[in-house]
Amino acid sequence: MDVRAALSAQAIQAALDGKTKPPGSLGRIEGLAAQVAALQGTPAPRVESCRLLIFAADHGMAALSAFPQEVTRQMVGNFLAGGAAASVFARAVGAEVTVVDAGVAGEPLEAEGLVSRRIGAGTADAREGPAMSADQVREALEAGRALGAGVRADAAAFGEMGIGNTASAALVAAKLLGRPVGPLVGRGTGLDDAGLARKRAALEGAAGRCPDRMGAVDALREYGGFEIAMMAGAMLGAARARRVVLVDGFIAGAAAASALDLDPGCREAMVFCHRSAEAGHGALLEGLGAEPLLDLALRLGEGTGALLAFPLVRAAAAMLAEMASFEDAGVSAGPPAG
Amino acid sequence: MDVRAALSAQAIQAALDGKTKPPGSLGRIEGLAAQVAALQGTPAPRVESCRLLIFAADHGMAALSAFPQEVTRQMVGNFLAGGAAASVFARAVGAEVTVVDAGVAGEPLEAEGLVSRRIGAGTADAREGPAMSADQVREALEAGRALGAGVRADAAAFGEMGIGNTASAALVAAKLLGRPVGPLVGRGTGLDDAGLARKRAALEGAAGRCPDRMGAVDALREYGGFEIAMMAGAMLGAARARRVVLVDGFIAGAAAASALDLDPGCREAMVFCHRSAEAGHGALLEGLGAEPLLDLALRLGEGTGALLAFPLVRAAAAMLAEMASFEDAGVSAGPPAG
Repeated sequence: MDVRAALSAQAIQAALDGKTKPPGSLGRIEGLAAQVAALQGTPAPRVESCRLLIFAADHGMAALSAFPQEVTRQMVGNFLAGGAAASVFARAVGAEVTVVDAGVAGEPLEAEGLVSRRIGAGTADAREGPAMSADQVREALEAGRALGAGVRADAAAFGEMGIGNTASAALVAAKLLGRPVGPLVGRGTGLDDAGLARKRAALEGAAGRCPDRMGAVDALREYGGFEIAMMAGAMLGAARARRVVLVDGFIAGAAAASALDLDPGCREAMVFCHRSAEAGHGALLEGLGAEPLLDLALRLGEGTGALLAFPLVRAAAAMLAEMASFEDAGVSAGPPAG
Repeated sequence: MDVRAALSAQAIQAALDGKTKPPGSLGRIEGLAAQVAALQGTPAPRVESCRLLIFAADHGMAALSAFPQEVTRQMVGNFLAGGAAASVFARAVGAEVTVVDAGVAGEPLEAEGLVSRRIGAGTADAREGPAMSADQVREALEAGRALGAGVRADAAAFGEMGIGNTASAALVAAKLLGRPVGPLVGRGTGLDDAGLARKRAALEGAAGRCPDRMGAVDALREYGGFEIAMMAGAMLGAARARRVVLVDGFIAGAAAASALDLDPGCREAMVFCHRSAEAGHGALLEGLGAEPLLDLALRLGEGTGALLAFPLVRAAAAMLAEMASFEDAGVSAGPPAG
């Protein structure tokens, strides 16, 4: 361990224990505050602003979803008009939103405010062969990296829209973790039992095309979505710029796993925001050793869970930056920190 | 069931299912939105503003705590100066704070901004006899009711400060639930094993003075704190004024249990905000049939957990009030709501 980092962690803990509260009594908020302080390199961290990047793209496996593929394109319009759940939550928590076309099916979208980084008009069908080319993976990662690095807010939240992308995320996660895909398959937007069985069989077949364990670039090429690859790149870019990286649910989790495979160091920037109701998310989180902040049975995506966690991160940073110490406030300390 | 209410619940569910998301995909946020809509009587609810009332008082059982009794008074100053955790969190989430002296030990506190509703200079020692008189219970409930009814914000959060008040809360909760006090006893601000054993023995002795099951007025008289009784009254007053009642952790939970015993109808206004790390809180929540929103290992009190939950409630209301419907946004609907 780097000596400077060790000293800094001690200094952060001392600052936390000097605050006017019993040591440890703010639980996970203290851990969050320590993480953000280490990331920003200051015992008075600030997480006042947040930008949500929503990456939209289509999938060759869209037919496995309960919703028609056209919904991806329609929802881009809904995000831009401010009517989607992510739009509303962003306003409610004081975050800004950027919508990125990473590869929506059909003609290129043109709309005011939309950022176009199209890699293609949707991926190929991963049941039959690679979802994209190696060049497309690199292009998506690079476009994402630049977008992530360009975030000026203290925190960068990542969301997605793409009919069929729980199928893609399940396969990418399975290969990165080196696990069977079955336990990672869920109902997505709302499959019934028959649809779920069909999806599971299809994904087991698709998984059989490749080795059990794959690196991120290979897994994304075979099974990824343009939005998942671009989001992984954006997480890397934002983490290297020392932004707090707010990881949403299952699909963002697959992107986070990809980013971590490419650069484990970005973990220090990542906050796993919530445990999705999508069946495979628990296994993915466990595989990453991550314990998320919220458990609200969300399964929408779009970055909604990341947005709901942002106020907790903001409060955690403010706690460390603003709370009085026992000394400052003239409050008698209790027992020493255990 | 009231026919109007039943229709209204149906209308709220229809509004939720018409929003541009898979039905149910916002999990507990949807339940919260429905609760707030029913409370406010509108499918476009608003929870934009929040006021935290912090009730401070001292306890005859303060010697059971890891911190000295003087800390109650010192922390009142810290709240007023804006340096406590609750002060910082309130600023972070956009809430206002009112600090109420419900009965701090020693001379009456005088400070700008402090609301004085002193019932006495701390309670008597509940190990030996009633903590307060029946008149004091009524006075505290009534003062609280008026304060709760006077909240002008959409949501009212309730916090407390009182060295020794986990002991009081454990006894009040035990008697309201008709359970042994043992499993409700925890480390409070940070007792070591010996301190915890001493506290448990003392509370088991104190519990033995009275019947196993008691109503709220009796339980508060025998074991309550002035801040707990006043908070219970404030919850009743705020609930009747149709404010969202944000219930914090273990001590606020004992106050909520008292309020529910006095008027079960106030349940529709209550949001149980978090599961405290204080050992007895799980049993109390289970006894009330409540599933809290957050589980962050907080055990500070002051209303800190209620403040951290406020942005979730605000986002839930905004979701129902502002999100586009499939029809409005021209988005293709998926399968019908299960």
